Amino acid sequence: MRWIRFSAAGKTAYGILEGERITEVNGGPFNGYERTGRVHLLGAVKFELPVIPPTFYCAGKNYAAHVIKSAQSRGVKPDIPQKPDIGYRANNALVAHNEPVVIPRDASEKIVYEGELVVVIGKKAKHLSESEALSCVLGYTIGNDISERTWQHSDRTFWRGKNTDTFKPMGPWIETNVDLEAMETIVRLNGVEQTRFPTNAMVFGIATYISTMTRYLTLYPGDVIWMGTDGTSPNLKAGDVVEVEITGIGTLRNPFVAEGAIDSRD
Amino acid sequence: MRWIRFSAAGKTAYGILEGERITEVNGGPFNGYERTGRVHLLGAVKFELPVIPPTFYCAGKNYAAHVIKSAQSRGVKPDIPQKPDIGYRANNALVAHNEPVVIPRDASEKIVYEGELVVVIGKKAKHLSESEALSCVLGYTIGNDISERTWQHSDRTFWRGKNTDTFKPMGPWIETNVDLEAMETIVRLNGVEQTRFPTNAMVFGIATYISTMTRYLTLYPGDVIWMGTDGTSPNLKAGDVVEVEITGIGTLRNPFVAEGAIDSRD
Repeated sequence: MRWIRFSAAGKTAYGILEGERITEVNGGPFNGYERTGRVHLLGAVKFELPVIPPTFYCAGKNYAAHVIKSAQSRGVKPDIPQKPDIGYRANNALVAHNEPVVIPRDASEKIVYEGELVVVIGKKAKHLSESEALSCVLGYTIGNDISERTWQHSDRTFWRGKNTDTFKPMGPWIETNVDLEAMETIVRLNGVEQTRFPTNAMVFGIATYISTMTRYLTLYPGDVIWMGTDGTSPNLKAGDVVEVEITGIGTLRNPFVAEGAIDSRD
Repeated sequence: MRWIRFSAAGKTAYGILEGERITEVNGGPFNGYERTGRVHLLGAVKFELPVIPPTFYCAGKNYAAHVIKSAQSRGVKPDIPQKPDIGYRANNALVAHNEPVVIPRDASEKIVYEGELVVVIGKKAKHLSESEALSCVLGYTIGNDISERTWQHSDRTFWRGKNTDTFKPMGPWIETNVDLEAMETIVRLNGVEQTRFPTNAMVFGIATYISTMTRYLTLYPGDVIWMGTDGTSPNLKAGDVVEVEITGIGTLRNPFVAEGAIDSRD
């Protein structure tokens, strides 16, 4: 089942996507819903963020090859995590499928993508064992964790390097029925494949993260957990288009523009 | 003007607090309001979080003496920030005035408080100069940034050390009319004063933070910025009560309990 959040005729709603047809619902995936008689064509709506999370979690360094390559590129020793310490990103940075990533005027050329599986929590959860952990998951969407690497390394926190406005595309929808072991993550730049990796080949898997996290924290409906990335990215520039496909979910596509080149969201 | 969020008779609402009387409103401070005829006594309501932030910002290391003492206690060189890099905390950890802070079973004895001024954003803001910065502020509340110091230093992120459930008391209300230069922050443990410092003696002030942040990110109504702390804390244990007073705002009070000692929120 595919949950899409969209706008049409000035109204934002959840809908169930079947093929190219969206059946609008009252309510949504987190608080109950009923189908309405309103049907929209996928090509005629504006994509909205599939969810605005109460807390936006992010598992950094969760694919061994990515950690090793990233360390090599900086001439430091690879630091593969020994335990699943979860991190955070910020809601201000989220943008939906098709929305532009705006490169700040003073950014360096080191703007890069990271294609990530996003876990969407459906039920309040605390103290879940690994075998119970996936019971709180509603479904999965796709994230593109954009970074400005010079800020990422120069600042005390990831505020500019990772959480500048528009640096966190997420979407296009939530797929509730996936085969994690069969999934591949593929990233294309201007239509040309750059990166491909098995989505579930993580250092710490989804169940391990959720079980560990919920020893100390409560997960709430709508919380998202971005699961990290593999591979490396070329430097991105205004005019580029990045697509992150995860097989079984879909494709998240976002163009890159220079700050000032378009009316920004403010 | 004091904005309080509260529950009474099974309903949560915003109200305007005058003395001990709450005038319930329809709407609230972020989206317009009208006063109702319903009045509640402060002593008869349950305090709720004054706001649930879209993004929960936190300025670490923002008082020089705190940075120096903290470094000395760990035998390392003080690292006073050279620029206002904002950090993050997580909504799962928020609890209201009077709600218990629950100490996890496997926490060490190094549980400590940090009394902090909290800035509450009232208006969407981007690209504000320092002189314009405070125009987006609705008002101020109080935060107690509880840490488990062994986890804070052993984990890759602050997830357990700072963001365990109940580790972020915030309240009791939002005061819109303050004199920043006159304010003092006072922390009491079981009624005995432990810490007192001038609230506005920050390394980087509120206007500097907001101006710097909004070069790259949009602040939204309801976002909060915790401004850091001065002084040090003794180790806290179950049975303790911590009060953070900021003159001109009020007092945030929270008891500490051991995990399993009460029905927790889950």
